[in-house]
Amino acid sequence: MKLYDSHTSPNPRRVRIFLAEKGIAVEKIAVNLAEREQLTPAYRAINSRCVVPTLVLDDGTALGEVPAICRYIEETHPEPPLFGRTPLERAVAAMWERRVELEGLFPGMELLRNANPALKDRAITGPRNYAQIAELAERARARLSDFFADLDARLAETRFVAGESFSFADITAVVAIDFAAKRSGIAMPEGLPALARWYAAVSSRPSMSA
Amino acid sequence: MKLYDSHTSPNPRRVRIFLAEKGIAVEKIAVNLAEREQLTPAYRAINSRCVVPTLVLDDGTALGEVPAICRYIEETHPEPPLFGRTPLERAVAAMWERRVELEGLFPGMELLRNANPALKDRAITGPRNYAQIAELAERARARLSDFFADLDARLAETRFVAGESFSFADITAVVAIDFAAKRSGIAMPEGLPALARWYAAVSSRPSMSA
Repeated sequence: MKLYDSHTSPNPRRVRIFLAEKGIAVEKIAVNLAEREQLTPAYRAINSRCVVPTLVLDDGTALGEVPAICRYIEETHPEPPLFGRTPLERAVAAMWERRVELEGLFPGMELLRNANPALKDRAITGPRNYAQIAELAERARARLSDFFADLDARLAETRFVAGESFSFADITAVVAIDFAAKRSGIAMPEGLPALARWYAAVSSRPSMSA
Repeated sequence: MKLYDSHTSPNPRRVRIFLAEKGIAVEKIAVNLAEREQLTPAYRAINSRCVVPTLVLDDGTALGEVPAICRYIEETHPEPPLFGRTPLERAVAAMWERRVELEGLFPGMELLRNANPALKDRAITGPRNYAQIAELAERARARLSDFFADLDARLAETRFVAGESFSFADITAVVAIDFAAKRSGIAMPEGLPALARWYAAVSSRPSMSA
């Protein structure tokens, strides 16, 4: 397997951490997003949405979309489980991962893409240009604030995002938080003790440096 | 199992069709979105995101998020398969389903929520109010046009959205197209022959009336 990768997008990091937790080494091929390499015909032939990551399997199949990639890795490399061990545990992990993605990661990407002058006309990933919308950047700031509060409330009830075990949902949550901090200067707020406890525990895992 | 349901949201329809394809009957409990029943404490206790659908299992577990619900049903009721039969087929189906959701269903919801006066301050689903953004409604119209063109190009290569078999990706695509037509008056364009061929085939399945 080889992974088309970038260190400036949050999405490949979700897959890198997932692979590190599984102890799987893959070849990594850097895609230079700053130079718009994802929009070249060569990359478009690999991933027609023109986004990273793409996991290319040994038979040549190109898999895009992080939840689909991670579920494939889970099925083919079940240990250690990162979605739980039963259909119900997998459903609960997938549900929480998606909530974190929709409410934390997507607003963080929306903020950067609608506020950063370097991303003018690149407000949406993909092959087509879309103009930035200033109101959307402002809304994303408010949504991130809601996300931190809601995640703190969840983590006051459970050890990890999806329950008592570390899962893919924790990976997406750490990536969302780090991305908002590093790329948009939106730090995790003080005064949210459950969130702080959880973040200290999960962000120190060796996989998180992947 | 029982399904908290609504006929005014596209998302419960994805689950209803999925259940109908599997031949599974469940109790359905209507949630009146027009009267904001999803925001009541009673419903919030079932689904803290305040969205439909929610599938409540016999042990009382409440599952939200359509892809998580449908993958749970698939694992517990494998026949007929709606994600394919192998880890790779499941990954490809999940990838295409997500593309259709992100590029077709989400813009359709964004258009309605940012343009319909009845949804003032309800531009995002969930417990908190967000103001409508007129530019977002306009952008969603353009994105839907891209979605139809891209889906036609895909269906010129494959019989169904995810490949040679009917899958969950087709369900989300039909729901996205019907929702844009019925709720926002955005009809599937003429002159896209692969899309027209596919839509005629899949929309006539008995499950689609669910």
